[in-house]
Amino acid sequence: MTGAVWVVGTGPAGAAWLSPETREILAQATDLVGYGPYINRVAESHHCCHISDNRQELARAEVALDMAESGRQVAVVSGGDPGIFAMAAAVCECIASAPEGRWQNVELAVFPGISALQAAAARIGAPLGHDFCVISLSDVLKPWSVIFNRLRLAAQADFAMVFYNPRSSQRSWQLGEALNLLAQEQAPDTPVVFARAIGREDEKLHFTSLAEADPSLVDMSTLVLVGNSQSRYFNHGGRQWMYSPRDYPADLRSKQTMTSR
Amino acid sequence: MTGAVWVVGTGPAGAAWLSPETREILAQATDLVGYGPYINRVAESHHCCHISDNRQELARAEVALDMAESGRQVAVVSGGDPGIFAMAAAVCECIASAPEGRWQNVELAVFPGISALQAAAARIGAPLGHDFCVISLSDVLKPWSVIFNRLRLAAQADFAMVFYNPRSSQRSWQLGEALNLLAQEQAPDTPVVFARAIGREDEKLHFTSLAEADPSLVDMSTLVLVGNSQSRYFNHGGRQWMYSPRDYPADLRSKQTMTSR
Repeated sequence: MTGAVWVVGTGPAGAAWLSPETREILAQATDLVGYGPYINRVAESHHCCHISDNRQELARAEVALDMAESGRQVAVVSGGDPGIFAMAAAVCECIASAPEGRWQNVELAVFPGISALQAAAARIGAPLGHDFCVISLSDVLKPWSVIFNRLRLAAQADFAMVFYNPRSSQRSWQLGEALNLLAQEQAPDTPVVFARAIGREDEKLHFTSLAEADPSLVDMSTLVLVGNSQSRYFNHGGRQWMYSPRDYPADLRSKQTMTSR
Repeated sequence: MTGAVWVVGTGPAGAAWLSPETREILAQATDLVGYGPYINRVAESHHCCHISDNRQELARAEVALDMAESGRQVAVVSGGDPGIFAMAAAVCECIASAPEGRWQNVELAVFPGISALQAAAARIGAPLGHDFCVISLSDVLKPWSVIFNRLRLAAQADFAMVFYNPRSSQRSWQLGEALNLLAQEQAPDTPVVFARAIGREDEKLHFTSLAEADPSLVDMSTLVLVGNSQSRYFNHGGRQWMYSPRDYPADLRSKQTMTSR
């Protein structure tokens, strides 16, 4: 039997967001490889579970590929979607960097899942209803200068934005600096939403603005969403919502296009 | 009984990508509102189906809200994820623009789904494994100058990119102009993938580069994915794959940060 590495995502929380395709793939797998909390969402008794720390992505991918080479059917499990700041890139990097021919008999397949950014957006209304960008604020694998430059250009491009990895105990200042930078380019009342643990028991939404946003309310379980210049709040059913309109005024950025080229 | 508008997405193709939550919501709905092909994926005999042309988003949202006000349980059905260039923004816009109090008794909820961009990324490998942006190339609701400016800044920010609505019979030149613009900012061998009808019978992947990309191969069923400066192709299992690495070199964009501020 040919071994396989199947890269899957569980969705951000619970079985209601696990795709039927991924459920089927997990049922066929002999082994699960991943970070403990994600494995715990989906492990069945027939699985051998290989749990590792959340930071060891490349080592985890290599373990999975080696097991698959010996004939196992290995599911590499991410939360959310495996392609968005998750294990698909690590598995691809492992294969692409290997000596020619290594793992060439291993079947590789990636399966899409619902991401945390989509779950958060759904709770908020439609913050990503127009052009948007997705940025990790972690400077573990890329220098802060790259992130800073990208944030500045993204603000000038007037993207709605989603920040992954916005803040941790080891990275306490990056989110504040990012929001300060955006406040130089965008209006103070630009909507900002902190979406914490969406779909889980401790789910929490906090609606604020660029001028008022308090980074200390953000932790590693939180996504930060920032609107574009057209995004707005509205009230419905006794609570706040936010959306980014589908249409866009003609005059808004064309001036900048003319002056900055 | 209070009426409800539930905004859902079917995933880009077939039942394997329909979330259990959305399946449950559809089972509870009395009415489905949406574009015919999406409705056809999920309609059951108990549903009243209200099919409209793909362009009439605001009118469709209003119909759904009016039906809900009369006590119906209405599912507004998008393909993919309802929050990404789909019906969630139109429903929010309808409510936010209405006279105060209109539709205030209607329950509103949005439910996330797997998007076409995630399905395409999974087939390709991990093109969105690093920071990325998502842009509609349609200039129906926004002027081309806005799109052009955004593309230029996104290229300078070195985002991986996904283009929705890249080309139609009425919009034939926009994709070519976008790719030409990117070619001024990025290397000619930057990976470009045309991902057509992913998950459907006529699914097709075409791997090319900024220098070689031929817009005439793209239609309305195609997503266009463009790598960042670090994205690369590799071969595995007899076919081509692409990924965007998780790490990022220190020297790459910091020069630009220094000179352009």
